[in-house]
Amino acid sequence: MSLLAIGTVAFDAIESPFGKTDKIIGGACTFISLSASYFTKPVQIVAVVGDDFPQDYIQLLEDHGVDTEGLQIKQGEKSFFWSGKYHNDMNTRDTLITELNVLADFDPVIPASYQGCEYLMLGNLSPQVQMTVLERLEKRPKLVVMDTMNFWMEVAREDLKKAIAKVDVLSINDEEARILSGDYSLRKAAKAIMAMGPKTLIIKKGEHGALLFQGDDVFFAPALPLEEVFDPTGAGDTFAGGFIGYLAATDDISFENMKRALIYGSAMASFCVEKFGTERLLNLTKEEVDARIQEFVKLSGFTVEA
Amino acid sequence: MSLLAIGTVAFDAIESPFGKTDKIIGGACTFISLSASYFTKPVQIVAVVGDDFPQDYIQLLEDHGVDTEGLQIKQGEKSFFWSGKYHNDMNTRDTLITELNVLADFDPVIPASYQGCEYLMLGNLSPQVQMTVLERLEKRPKLVVMDTMNFWMEVAREDLKKAIAKVDVLSINDEEARILSGDYSLRKAAKAIMAMGPKTLIIKKGEHGALLFQGDDVFFAPALPLEEVFDPTGAGDTFAGGFIGYLAATDDISFENMKRALIYGSAMASFCVEKFGTERLLNLTKEEVDARIQEFVKLSGFTVEA
Repeated sequence: MSLLAIGTVAFDAIESPFGKTDKIIGGACTFISLSASYFTKPVQIVAVVGDDFPQDYIQLLEDHGVDTEGLQIKQGEKSFFWSGKYHNDMNTRDTLITELNVLADFDPVIPASYQGCEYLMLGNLSPQVQMTVLERLEKRPKLVVMDTMNFWMEVAREDLKKAIAKVDVLSINDEEARILSGDYSLRKAAKAIMAMGPKTLIIKKGEHGALLFQGDDVFFAPALPLEEVFDPTGAGDTFAGGFIGYLAATDDISFENMKRALIYGSAMASFCVEKFGTERLLNLTKEEVDARIQEFVKLSGFTVEA
Repeated sequence: MSLLAIGTVAFDAIESPFGKTDKIIGGACTFISLSASYFTKPVQIVAVVGDDFPQDYIQLLEDHGVDTEGLQIKQGEKSFFWSGKYHNDMNTRDTLITELNVLADFDPVIPASYQGCEYLMLGNLSPQVQMTVLERLEKRPKLVVMDTMNFWMEVAREDLKKAIAKVDVLSINDEEARILSGDYSLRKAAKAIMAMGPKTLIIKKGEHGALLFQGDDVFFAPALPLEEVFDPTGAGDTFAGGFIGYLAATDDISFENMKRALIYGSAMASFCVEKFGTERLLNLTKEEVDARIQEFVKLSGFTVEA
């Protein structure tokens, strides 16, 4: 089924204990759409870049089945740029540079050909922009998944709460769940957040996996223990892209299928962190993805007497 | 099959955001034996207390199927005492008091009736005492599981390495695995530690679950997300007790059965943290344990196309 993703398409510059990159392609929407493209094509995107954004990068997205009709190119403006440095534990990072540029006054435009999309992934952007996109869709999608971050909890809490109330699935990390709910216990935090509107909540725990809550049900997808985590940038977005991409491809939003989608998202994220930026997401094969899924089956499968 | 556990039998005094206890029964061997007693009885113990240790506490162990013949009572001496205070996140704690007392010169004596034990749980004690117990068993048990802690990595690293080399399963937490191996990646750390001797390694991650490594195989048991963690004291020992108790009860040390044992250990630990000290471990029913196991099945069960 048709999938629309919004979020940043941007430049990242990354430093980690393993090296340093120049400005490379990054942004939530980039990781989401590349990851989702392994399950369903085309992936429609609504995003904005400046005229400094290389045509090669746009072509790279197109080559992976991303429909860039909704990618605005602002003449005379610069693309969003983020630079960060990871510490030795790869779990904490310092933001070195954030240049909003074109994002400062992003007015999302939905191409007519995108109307009627069934699955909507609201990648991390201001809650106001996220809501504008939802409002500008003439028909409410079958499933709306929203990702956000602590920054918006600090600077736009009321807008954020209004947005959260309107989505089906919210995806945040454990620290954000604690901030948003005021509860340290993730089980309690999940209840409090689902009471804000979303029927389903994903709490991402990075290298510790991810939890899926819906009503009284809870499911846990482990993260694959890797020999080396090279660069965690985009892992959460890649996870979200795999999650909604799998749901759109199977067109089944039952809790049972969401469990599988969580595993597929985790598998895609496990690839993402193996190389810098989007590199590992550019040339995966179906065999590699299937083999990785089987690693998750082995990792968490057990039987007990009923 | 027969199970022998060693470790501390002691007094704990605990402060947490939820309250404060007087001196209550605690110690690695206490938690291990109570937890294991839900799977196999009797649980033989080798430990030492002073004459300040209440007969009621010894009776409490006996009432749960713990064979206390190997519990030495040192006249005129005091029991080991630990006091700690948990921070608001319940993941970090300050040790307020550590009084070694009878532990300072503990010489473990194995009752003749314990000889021939098939399963041995070396709970956290000095590596030298752990090795003495192994040496004093006339027949090597079928499975030797050892738990230790960062303290011994600092003060007795060489003794610890000698001990590690002699056990079948080592159980440590993620921080300890990183210290012991010098590797941040748990996958790499596991390889390095298994190269030190133990064929099987358990890496405990507290509220983030536990990993089981053997050769190239890896299995992950999630921790159950709980509404409230009341007191984490003893959770690791309770986990170990459930793990080896289940293995001893089923007398099957295959990797497949160890996976199940890891789930049983995690289930027991999830009970432990729901109340102060040993309280929750004193009156569990088989139905409660079985229901908790089914919660783990629901928590991590998923199906994908083969």
